[in-house]
Amino acid sequence: MDAPQASTADTAEDRRRPSRRSVIGWAGAGVALGAAGVGSVAAATMGGEAGAAAGDAGAVPFHGEHQAGIATPVQDRLHFAAFDVTTGDRAALVALLKQWTRAAAAMTAGREVGDGAVDGLAEAPPDDTGEALGLPASRLTLTIGFGPTLFEQDGKDRFGIRARRPEALIDLPRFPGDNLDPDRSGGDLCVQACADDPQVAVHAIRNLARIGMGTVSVRWSQLGFGKTSSTTPEAQTPRNLMGFKDGTHNIAGSDAKALRDHVWAAPGDGPEWMTGGSYLVARRIRMHIETWDRSSLSEQEDVFGRTKGEGAPYGRRKEHDAPDLTAMPADSHVRLAHPDSNGGLMILRRGYSFTDGTDGLGRLDAGLFFLAYQRDTRKAFVPLQKRLSASDALNEYIQHVGSAHFACPPGVRTSGEWWGQALFG
Amino acid sequence: MDAPQASTADTAEDRRRPSRRSVIGWAGAGVALGAAGVGSVAAATMGGEAGAAAGDAGAVPFHGEHQAGIATPVQDRLHFAAFDVTTGDRAALVALLKQWTRAAAAMTAGREVGDGAVDGLAEAPPDDTGEALGLPASRLTLTIGFGPTLFEQDGKDRFGIRARRPEALIDLPRFPGDNLDPDRSGGDLCVQACADDPQVAVHAIRNLARIGMGTVSVRWSQLGFGKTSSTTPEAQTPRNLMGFKDGTHNIAGSDAKALRDHVWAAPGDGPEWMTGGSYLVARRIRMHIETWDRSSLSEQEDVFGRTKGEGAPYGRRKEHDAPDLTAMPADSHVRLAHPDSNGGLMILRRGYSFTDGTDGLGRLDAGLFFLAYQRDTRKAFVPLQKRLSASDALNEYIQHVGSAHFACPPGVRTSGEWWGQALFG
Repeated sequence: MDAPQASTADTAEDRRRPSRRSVIGWAGAGVALGAAGVGSVAAATMGGEAGAAAGDAGAVPFHGEHQAGIATPVQDRLHFAAFDVTTGDRAALVALLKQWTRAAAAMTAGREVGDGAVDGLAEAPPDDTGEALGLPASRLTLTIGFGPTLFEQDGKDRFGIRARRPEALIDLPRFPGDNLDPDRSGGDLCVQACADDPQVAVHAIRNLARIGMGTVSVRWSQLGFGKTSSTTPEAQTPRNLMGFKDGTHNIAGSDAKALRDHVWAAPGDGPEWMTGGSYLVARRIRMHIETWDRSSLSEQEDVFGRTKGEGAPYGRRKEHDAPDLTAMPADSHVRLAHPDSNGGLMILRRGYSFTDGTDGLGRLDAGLFFLAYQRDTRKAFVPLQKRLSASDALNEYIQHVGSAHFACPPGVRTSGEWWGQALFG
Repeated sequence: MDAPQASTADTAEDRRRPSRRSVIGWAGAGVALGAAGVGSVAAATMGGEAGAAAGDAGAVPFHGEHQAGIATPVQDRLHFAAFDVTTGDRAALVALLKQWTRAAAAMTAGREVGDGAVDGLAEAPPDDTGEALGLPASRLTLTIGFGPTLFEQDGKDRFGIRARRPEALIDLPRFPGDNLDPDRSGGDLCVQACADDPQVAVHAIRNLARIGMGTVSVRWSQLGFGKTSSTTPEAQTPRNLMGFKDGTHNIAGSDAKALRDHVWAAPGDGPEWMTGGSYLVARRIRMHIETWDRSSLSEQEDVFGRTKGEGAPYGRRKEHDAPDLTAMPADSHVRLAHPDSNGGLMILRRGYSFTDGTDGLGRLDAGLFFLAYQRDTRKAFVPLQKRLSASDALNEYIQHVGSAHFACPPGVRTSGEWWGQALFG
């Protein structure tokens, strides 16, 4: 990985070029010495292979049967981007997917984008934008998905893959109460970047957008600052911006049976290229924060069907006690969303809280960016949201303002493979 | 602090009420057991005073000679809000400032808003919105500032304090290149919330906004996800979204002389009520990320006058080497902004990177939310920005799109005192 010029003499010109070797060594030192901060002079003197090896600390493996970022323990921060493909050229799209795969493998390992060949050329733009230099991998995962419009748009088979569109990748129906902004909905492609450091997640999306210039453009993107779900059952359930713990009984990333039954597309479910993949529904859910904050504690607890402080389901003492659905109001969120009310239906949630400043009326533009992975959207999100959108007491306080649906292919298994190879190959 | 009802018997009704005692105990357990997550059942069983004491871990003292959040080592995340006062009633404004002070003292200590008297009443809204329950204090600081329009607006002395307006609290001049959005500029009041956990910072601003309902409304707000400055000299200088270390030689929070000379208003500087305070300039600086990313490494390094990888000033080897300004291009940012080019002028920077999704053209709405504290804006930010806006090579890649100026009073010294007491009292 090291460019030959990294070891050449330090002329004045050379000193102005960041060397991959020293940069990775410096990143490694940052990991080893911890987040409390290290003297950068001391850190910068640690180069070489030992440092480079330490640069992988905190990295989630990119290669595997499934894409990382789905069953992976939920990281603290999110940057999600939906892209429009701006070319009609299938070869250009395939070339981009190959480039993206290489870049994603590098960044998730805590390395820079690029192969070192351009870094030394002062007259060229750097391969990597640089704002994550010195930061550890931070459990970055990058997860790609293909939207319905990639397969067919306005009746047109844009890239020769219309016949390969999974039946499960439906155009989502309109639900009661939806107030969807087309500028925050849809997309031909998506990339979900999750990391424990927001700078690492933002860096990743930005560099993918940059690589894609001329082939794709960002349609919309969303930052999430606080995870609202956990896929590690032993962890505390985080609170959403309504101050409640929700999604207590999420699918655990370690629960192979639940993942098999509810998350991963299986052979025979649809086209073979999706086996081991999953369907992602993204919904931007605005919360009417100011109205919620004026409602009484009992109203708030009735809406969820659980206590605010402890998070215990009505009629129980502790958050993780099995709920007694009959003790809850019939329109309470927990009761309506519970698997027992939905024939055992489960989805894997990875939602994040967002706050995007203030709207024109001085209200916080805040809420939940809901991300759900499932084996078949027709049998999971759609019936669940039909039920919730019709009856959920929470509807008085929320509005769905963005929506998208993507088929996330299985994992890239080897370093020669690329995102979407089975679909396009 | 504990409400009497917290120890009463657990009837079904009581079980639905969050008890401050158990909630604070639970928060304490979260701190003690670390961020890796604890079993919430186990944590919830730890109540009482031992837990409550641990809830203060990671708290920055609220009371003191100066407001916290200025010289305090820069926290990881920011939520900044500017407010318009919507009442003309001085007594209502004073009452709000007293309420805010109590709430700020509680939240910075890792406690809930409120005195516990309302929490037990199911028919009333909870005092605290709840999304920070269970989270540690996370070094939260809340810093208040008073804008020029609080003293005088449209020629009107709104609250009888026009005569107390500091001369240093000028209406900022228009600088070349400014493209200010009035909806992201100005404000009668501001609160800067900094914390190591974004949920804690967002919670604080939201609860202050909620307390202020009917008296103030949020004019604009800004989330910052990555600090770009450090006030702890031993820490690594963070990188901005251009991938560069900037502001290497910031004023250290421990450098009493520099703080005295450049940050804190001194007796005789202006009105007595500002002694020990500081003037804050906030600028939302959009970066033309896509243009920057297409520019060559040498162009990027010439713009800053330092190397990208190591961050060393031109002609030097290491980031913290004293710069040789003559080795840099005359229009480079480091050279123009350096104290030696500005008669020793220094400001204390606490800027944060922001990314607010995408604009209508598919470009990231990203950049630097610049926050600078100084003893007298007329002698610090204004001459510096005059110089930079006229000549800085960086101007090709940035645009100032929001601007505000605030007088931040000295600290609240005792628990009976309130924000702005010396101004209004």
